[in-house]
Amino acid sequence: MEDLRIAILGHRFMGRAHSNGWSQVTKFFDPPYRPVLQVACGRDAEDLQLFADRWGWAEIETDWRKVIERDDIDVIDISLPTHLHAEPAIAAAEAGKHIFCEKPGCRNSEEAAAMLEAAEKAGVVHYLNHNYRRCPAVALAKKMIDEGEIGEIYHWRGAYQQSWLANPDLPIDWKLKKDTAAAGPLWDLGSHAVDLAHYLVGDFAHLTCDGKQFIKERPLASDPSQTGQVEVECAANLIGEFKNGALATIEMTRYATGRRNRHTFEIYGSKGAITWDMEDMNRIKFYSESDPDHLKGFRDILVTERCHEYANAWWPPGHIIGYEHGFVHAAADFLEAVKSGNGITPDLNDNVRIIRVLEAALRSMEGEGKVVL
Amino acid sequence: MEDLRIAILGHRFMGRAHSNGWSQVTKFFDPPYRPVLQVACGRDAEDLQLFADRWGWAEIETDWRKVIERDDIDVIDISLPTHLHAEPAIAAAEAGKHIFCEKPGCRNSEEAAAMLEAAEKAGVVHYLNHNYRRCPAVALAKKMIDEGEIGEIYHWRGAYQQSWLANPDLPIDWKLKKDTAAAGPLWDLGSHAVDLAHYLVGDFAHLTCDGKQFIKERPLASDPSQTGQVEVECAANLIGEFKNGALATIEMTRYATGRRNRHTFEIYGSKGAITWDMEDMNRIKFYSESDPDHLKGFRDILVTERCHEYANAWWPPGHIIGYEHGFVHAAADFLEAVKSGNGITPDLNDNVRIIRVLEAALRSMEGEGKVVL
Amino acid sequence: MEDLRIAILGHRFMGRAHSNGWSQVTKFFDPPYRPVLQVACGRDAEDLQLFADRWGWAEIETDWRKVIERDDIDVIDISLPTHLHAEPAIAAAEAGKHIFCEKPGCRNSEEAAAMLEAAEKAGVVHYLNHNYRRCPAVALAKKMIDEGEIGEIYHWRGAYQQSWLANPDLPIDWKLKKDTAAAGPLWDLGSHAVDLAHYLVGDFAHLTCDGKQFIKERPLASDPSQTGQVEVECAANLIGEFKNGALATIEMTRYATGRRNRHTFEIYGSKGAITWDMEDMNRIKFYSESDPDHLKGFRDILVTERCHEYANAWWPPGHIIGYEHGFVHAAADFLEAVKSGNGITPDLNDNVRIIRVLEAALRSMEGEGKVVL
Amino acid sequence: MEDLRIAILGHRFMGRAHSNGWSQVTKFFDPPYRPVLQVACGRDAEDLQLFADRWGWAEIETDWRKVIERDDIDVIDISLPTHLHAEPAIAAAEAGKHIFCEKPGCRNSEEAAAMLEAAEKAGVVHYLNHNYRRCPAVALAKKMIDEGEIGEIYHWRGAYQQSWLANPDLPIDWKLKKDTAAAGPLWDLGSHAVDLAHYLVGDFAHLTCDGKQFIKERPLASDPSQTGQVEVECAANLIGEFKNGALATIEMTRYATGRRNRHTFEIYGSKGAITWDMEDMNRIKFYSESDPDHLKGFRDILVTERCHEYANAWWPPGHIIGYEHGFVHAAADFLEAVKSGNGITPDLNDNVRIIRVLEAALRSMEGEGKVVL
Repeated sequence: MEDLRIAILGHRFMGRAHSNGWSQVTKFFDPPYRPVLQVACGRDAEDLQLFADRWGWAEIETDWRKVIERDDIDVIDISLPTHLHAEPAIAAAEAGKHIFCEKPGCRNSEEAAAMLEAAEKAGVVHYLNHNYRRCPAVALAKKMIDEGEIGEIYHWRGAYQQSWLANPDLPIDWKLKKDTAAAGPLWDLGSHAVDLAHYLVGDFAHLTCDGKQFIKERPLASDPSQTGQVEVECAANLIGEFKNGALATIEMTRYATGRRNRHTFEIYGSKGAITWDMEDMNRIKFYSESDPDHLKGFRDILVTERCHEYANAWWPPGHIIGYEHGFVHAAADFLEAVKSGNGITPDLNDNVRIIRVLEAALRSMEGEGKVVL
Repeated sequence: MEDLRIAILGHRFMGRAHSNGWSQVTKFFDPPYRPVLQVACGRDAEDLQLFADRWGWAEIETDWRKVIERDDIDVIDISLPTHLHAEPAIAAAEAGKHIFCEKPGCRNSEEAAAMLEAAEKAGVVHYLNHNYRRCPAVALAKKMIDEGEIGEIYHWRGAYQQSWLANPDLPIDWKLKKDTAAAGPLWDLGSHAVDLAHYLVGDFAHLTCDGKQFIKERPLASDPSQTGQVEVECAANLIGEFKNGALATIEMTRYATGRRNRHTFEIYGSKGAITWDMEDMNRIKFYSESDPDHLKGFRDILVTERCHEYANAWWPPGHIIGYEHGFVHAAADFLEAVKSGNGITPDLNDNVRIIRVLEAALRSMEGEGKVVL
Repeated sequence: MEDLRIAILGHRFMGRAHSNGWSQVTKFFDPPYRPVLQVACGRDAEDLQLFADRWGWAEIETDWRKVIERDDIDVIDISLPTHLHAEPAIAAAEAGKHIFCEKPGCRNSEEAAAMLEAAEKAGVVHYLNHNYRRCPAVALAKKMIDEGEIGEIYHWRGAYQQSWLANPDLPIDWKLKKDTAAAGPLWDLGSHAVDLAHYLVGDFAHLTCDGKQFIKERPLASDPSQTGQVEVECAANLIGEFKNGALATIEMTRYATGRRNRHTFEIYGSKGAITWDMEDMNRIKFYSESDPDHLKGFRDILVTERCHEYANAWWPPGHIIGYEHGFVHAAADFLEAVKSGNGITPDLNDNVRIIRVLEAALRSMEGEGKVVL
Repeated sequence: MEDLRIAILGHRFMGRAHSNGWSQVTKFFDPPYRPVLQVACGRDAEDLQLFADRWGWAEIETDWRKVIERDDIDVIDISLPTHLHAEPAIAAAEAGKHIFCEKPGCRNSEEAAAMLEAAEKAGVVHYLNHNYRRCPAVALAKKMIDEGEIGEIYHWRGAYQQSWLANPDLPIDWKLKKDTAAAGPLWDLGSHAVDLAHYLVGDFAHLTCDGKQFIKERPLASDPSQTGQVEVECAANLIGEFKNGALATIEMTRYATGRRNRHTFEIYGSKGAITWDMEDMNRIKFYSESDPDHLKGFRDILVTERCHEYANAWWPPGHIIGYEHGFVHAAADFLEAVKSGNGITPDLNDNVRIIRVLEAALRSMEGEGKVVL
């Protein structure tokens, strides 16, 4: 097994999740490369060293440009806040590095286009980490839809509900500022929701979005006795239609008390229906019109059988997996893509599609009403 | 116990449900009047007589005007299709009869205003039968909200999903024509959803609505070898905001395969959350921020205890009730209202509010975009 | 429609539920007889009159023997405590009256045999009201088993869990005395559980039962400052085997905090599995080995469709029914049986089978260990 | 961080799960030692080398005695079939190695006693890997019980249901032979169920057990055209009582079609109830009598918050973990125990208790009836 040397930019929540993906992938899968955790990059050298020691990154570096200049790095893993994606991604592409980029891809269509252009010009593999596609349950939903189990799609009812901002004492951080986050849950959560909608239904034809600020001022992290302005929406609701004629709703919020990470969809079609909820991520609910009338009902499919994609790499039936496994699956598929040269989705093309929808929603929310895509 | 003589207009689905309400109310409640099932009115005398025999209506009559002219009738129960509500309601009021009217109240604001004006002028009791308010679980939700259990409301996520029209062979009936039904699920299902939103959250400040026809032509009931045009939307999605600042989504459809009568809401507030689903109507899910951190979770409250409103009239704890019980509760409260003179809600005032919202949604759906109320 | 004149013995909880059954049956079904609520019988004339007025019983009577002697009564409905079943049932049979008898059928095998003998000798219709058989969901389970959907049965995992006695302040009543109740939950709840096991699986080959008193003394109802001895078990657990080779467990308790009326079973067979819970009585969960591997999962069947037995008499799909509806269905089937002469199950034959099992369990619990049936 | 050198015996399912535990523990916890994966031991050198390469075991060895003789090994991890536990465990103890032993601990009380004696004499740390204790949800249940949330316990309703043997084509392996497995699901699944009952409720006072063979002959793995005798029970049911007066039921089966790894318990006490199911392992359902009457209901606690034991080491709230995480938690606690010298539970003392119960159940099943412990 050949080595593929990774450099990771970022060492917080996503740094951990990505590192775990790289280190677990050879244990449970048989990828064509062994990922070597070569360099971890971040601004706080002390914290960074602790992180590198814990996860087995061989070296640390505080200047990301130096990392990208190195000849011995094959993959740049971007696990940074949103506003810090475009520049390193473009530089990585120009340096001929493959790109494994955390979502949301970037802040706007200009960045998205530039990222894609650089990656395509360089011919590198590029991956946008909408990890939920790689939950076995979501992979099953995709397979079912492709095989016609639900027929023509009528409805996508999506929501991504969290509640952490319902606590008014939480201070302002980069996720609450426009320049760093582009928007609120519309960007952070909505990008996931739109990616799944793209993956499972298709492109949007038009949409209308409505948003709201519930708590407008919060303590400053630097000085909690002072408050600052929340610059992004607290919640956003979107209605619209796909090009294939299906209707869509998406609700995105950080104020859904009691929901911690409820990323959910309901899909209704002419032959059946599928629902899923990330808080119960190992299950798909499936209703089929082809069942006999007296036996019709939503099946509760525990996606842990040998026949279920990704699940077969882990444990016997009935033994569930968790959140971080999606990152391991992404690492496995990414390594395959580097080998095959056939690409992996979602990638920076998908990023362009997603950002276009999010920007349309943002403009709609800011007063433009219905936006045709 | 004094008698109160009822005349019912209509003898189909709603005729049965109302008749059952009037006949069960004295068995399980102690109303101040005994409702006497005096006259059943309909156009098909043969069917009507069978209906009257089955339910114990003493007489039948095929001309509703004659019923209203009678001196010995106290209450007109309107269980007819939507377009046949306004005229009899106004005539009943003018004749001094109390009004028990099925929903949707009417087709437009003009009818709604005329109905209310007539009823108020006559000083009769008027009731609009949004029966879901009288499910014990919904009554509990109202009580919890009033007592502050969920604090300031951030989100109303509502849906009323049915699936019967996903079958393309179903013929056109009055529910699919504009003149008789005003609109599709927006009117039929949306009126219920909006009523619950009004009841539990408050008035809308603005809204945007999007709708769609999935199947545009259907067999004629009179001649299935011919098809006719479906005149109303197949599904509608609404986003908006309440005057108190809460955000709203409502999804209304007859194409949600696998959902037969899923009328559901999720309410998220600063202190807690409540969810409900008509297909599981005896339960409320409740999340409270005031629980200790390690014990926080959605409670599954089976609303069958002695302390639960309406439930205490029926069976011991754990013995659930069904759909039709809401009509019995409505009958009980209506009879109390006739006695007390204090009115009952929802009434024809609520009808005006609801129709105003539905009309706004209809205009929005037809191209007006965001409508301020 | 001919009349069939009913006399009811008893006017408490079961008196209400039975009266409702008789009065609703002609509204929702088309029975061959109209049940006439002729006489209500009980010892407390004042309460009895209120009951009769409320439910429409034409007359009252305080001496049950006089009722049975009357020529104009066709059916004796026994809605009394357990120890008061045998004598009136036998007298009724001897007087040629049909018998509609509440469960548990009686206190011991001698009573059961005498009741059956009298009924058979007289050739009357006799019915034992294990009403749960007539929930649409249970009827569906029976149909599915009969049609081979779950194959050879391996497991019956049953439980009937209530919690009302977990409250130590509840006084002693007839349900806690041996002479009146025969046993505790073993008799009251276990008779239902055993009836469903008989209905859905078959006869027991052997069993072992273990019981327990958690609270041994309770206030006297007559004088709460005094306490008396609880004479029956508080909970009982049973394991055993059916004659067809399936294993059984049944848990019966009034101390399952949080469970109000959870009568549940899980059936596992070579081809599938079925589960049900009375607190969610309109649903069957069904797992089928014949589903494709990747789509296998427990279906959640909402038993409210037109194709579901009994359900089709009520409301449109998705509109659930409640506890009391089983009594209406029993009344409908009983009236059919009187007409057809083909009998109805469960009847006093089933009573003999059930009491034999309960007695075996009681002996096992009292020290006899494994009892072969 | 000091090193602690591990040798693992076994490299199949449990070898993987244990290796993952040792390799993940330093990523998510801060144990006092760094576990060094020094030697992997097994009989098939080729497979073993692949396993060692995958998981990072530095060396392989095919003779377990040689492993135990080495001076540079601190911990012997026994991940072998049941009949191969006692001898290496005793040898390991005698060689002064700490013991990390997979369950079921051994085949009988003689082995259990000898294992314990050797470990105690040597003063080594010994751990029996009933991993379910270390699910965050089970840890929460323990905490709640210890803090009195459910009061005096009345009922333990346990089950461990799998379905893999419902397939008659599966060949005979070591789990179906008495000499290697001691018994069927009673040992394999029952040991887990009894361990949780011991942990959460206490010791058994008496029990009765009933078992059954559904499929008595199966293909031989060596030659599928031939069949051999299944030597152990296919399913077993147990009823009994704990020393503290609570009643118990435990159902253990490999024939519960549709259940893949449903390890579940329901605990009912004087003040509340708790239920759990391994197939939905991140949740605890909790009912509390101290809730206001109208808000009483089972809470669905998603055990992923910062305040939940073990969960806080992983991801933000709402991000669930999976099956293998229990092994990581066990590794963390084991390493702490080696440092502190305070021991870890369950250990070989618990093994003696568990095996005593399983042996009693086996004797009961084989004809002894009720067995007092």
